[in-house]
Amino acid sequence: MPRRVTLRRPSTLPRSCWRVFPNWQMPETSKRPASSRVSPVSGYGGGPAVEAWLRRAVLSPFEVMRRTIPDGLEPVRDAIIDLADRQRADLILTTGGTGPSARDLTPEGTGAATDKQLPGFGELMRRSSLEQVPTAILSRQTAGIRARTLVVNLPGRPSSIDVCLAAVFPAIPYCLELIDAARIDVDPAIVASYRPG
Amino acid sequence: MPRRVTLRRPSTLPRSCWRVFPNWQMPETSKRPASSRVSPVSGYGGGPAVEAWLRRAVLSPFEVMRRTIPDGLEPVRDAIIDLADRQRADLILTTGGTGPSARDLTPEGTGAATDKQLPGFGELMRRSSLEQVPTAILSRQTAGIRARTLVVNLPGRPSSIDVCLAAVFPAIPYCLELIDAARIDVDPAIVASYRPG
Amino acid sequence: MPRRVTLRRPSTLPRSCWRVFPNWQMPETSKRPASSRVSPVSGYGGGPAVEAWLRRAVLSPFEVMRRTIPDGLEPVRDAIIDLADRQRADLILTTGGTGPSARDLTPEGTGAATDKQLPGFGELMRRSSLEQVPTAILSRQTAGIRARTLVVNLPGRPSSIDVCLAAVFPAIPYCLELIDAARIDVDPAIVASYRPG
Repeated sequence: MPRRVTLRRPSTLPRSCWRVFPNWQMPETSKRPASSRVSPVSGYGGGPAVEAWLRRAVLSPFEVMRRTIPDGLEPVRDAIIDLADRQRADLILTTGGTGPSARDLTPEGTGAATDKQLPGFGELMRRSSLEQVPTAILSRQTAGIRARTLVVNLPGRPSSIDVCLAAVFPAIPYCLELIDAARIDVDPAIVASYRPG
Repeated sequence: MPRRVTLRRPSTLPRSCWRVFPNWQMPETSKRPASSRVSPVSGYGGGPAVEAWLRRAVLSPFEVMRRTIPDGLEPVRDAIIDLADRQRADLILTTGGTGPSARDLTPEGTGAATDKQLPGFGELMRRSSLEQVPTAILSRQTAGIRARTLVVNLPGRPSSIDVCLAAVFPAIPYCLELIDAARIDVDPAIVASYRPG
Repeated sequence: MPRRVTLRRPSTLPRSCWRVFPNWQMPETSKRPASSRVSPVSGYGGGPAVEAWLRRAVLSPFEVMRRTIPDGLEPVRDAIIDLADRQRADLILTTGGTGPSARDLTPEGTGAATDKQLPGFGELMRRSSLEQVPTAILSRQTAGIRARTLVVNLPGRPSSIDVCLAAVFPAIPYCLELIDAARIDVDPAIVASYRPG
């Protein structure tokens, strides 16, 4: 059952379209600056949807840090670099900005901030979403690794977020282990997590 | 029912293998130079197959401009740039040149001419074609966006073209809207087009 | 049933023979110099699994040369270049090194050594493996072409290797023909090979 989370509206919203970065890190590595405590208010409510899903599915204690940033390659790239390198996020989940329109540059920002690409994430998310809507092929979602941080692009709409998280999350705990990130446990009733061997 | 289209055989065929670019643009933006009026004569008849499919599926008035170009990265790249920037094509559909052989460089030319890649198109076309032939994985088809123009690589064989267009066309009208290209209407009996929200 | 074949060192390679180079890495032995020609026993047994599969499936005479190389982009890249250009391999099958961990750089090495990417191979191998394990999306396997040599990344575990070879091998004989490599015949009871037209 999801815990209730109090959301505060950010005092200064940079633009009318937002990215939300639930930043997964264990409590002991919490070094969040006050400025990063903005709450997610995306056009679609993507951020709260991601957080609600995580609170349902993940049993290990974790901390969610959200950021709302403007569209564009540089803001996404810089936010990922900061969250990964300075805030030591284990998992960065972006929402929105993956479509074909001019302002959608989240995949480019993700690519610029990560060393390794994981094309299987985007393939499976598109394939799963395609069972819902034929426009799923327009999504350019990807995933990548920056040192010990896994970055996964999610769509902006809550209903699509749930479909994508259900599709790829079973592989995330093992992936985090392989990159020496945090070990997490998930609710097997929600996520059929798997560790080979 | 497809309208009859008069096809003229080009007087000078540059090489033995051809690319056909049905170039979709609205009649009022027609500024085609005489040199672009070559007719499609591909080895497989890919160009006429694309055009016949479009005339069956698309209800909005549109203009088809075809180009036959030689193989190679530069010819494909330059044709796309010219069709997108100068001829203001909304949609460029290439046929052929996506295989593994040395002369097949249409995906490379497409990548060089587009700012954004849409990997979902290639994934779905390969997956759909794979139900027909196991060699579908050899196709390197992709799609990309250059400003307000969507570029989609299609295979060269008419039967494969139909499979691919049926697979990805449902997402094309919405994609054209998202990139501020033309709004088009399709025959729902042929294309289950979809616009979210 | 696998035929017994004596493996010879590649000092004098007959040009008429089809050459396949299952090339595997083993993380446990990643400190061995590239020059070491140790016996082909990886931690997972990936190399022998590849060879056993080939001997079951391929009817044409062929020669297998194995190399064990350390992890890393450069060793993989250099081994592919040497095997393709100097040893004139028709097909290079790598095993292992395709995961998300820091030492897994086989796809990067493959990309650096090949001119053309064949994304359909990775897509299909991930999709086929996904029916076995949800962590299949962590595999970054790809395939590419260097002149007349096809390079395909395979996973490291024998059970996964079999799944992947069964998925993509039907397209390999035709691919080899398209790039002017050797013509090979396969056992139709094992591989439903296909040549269009």
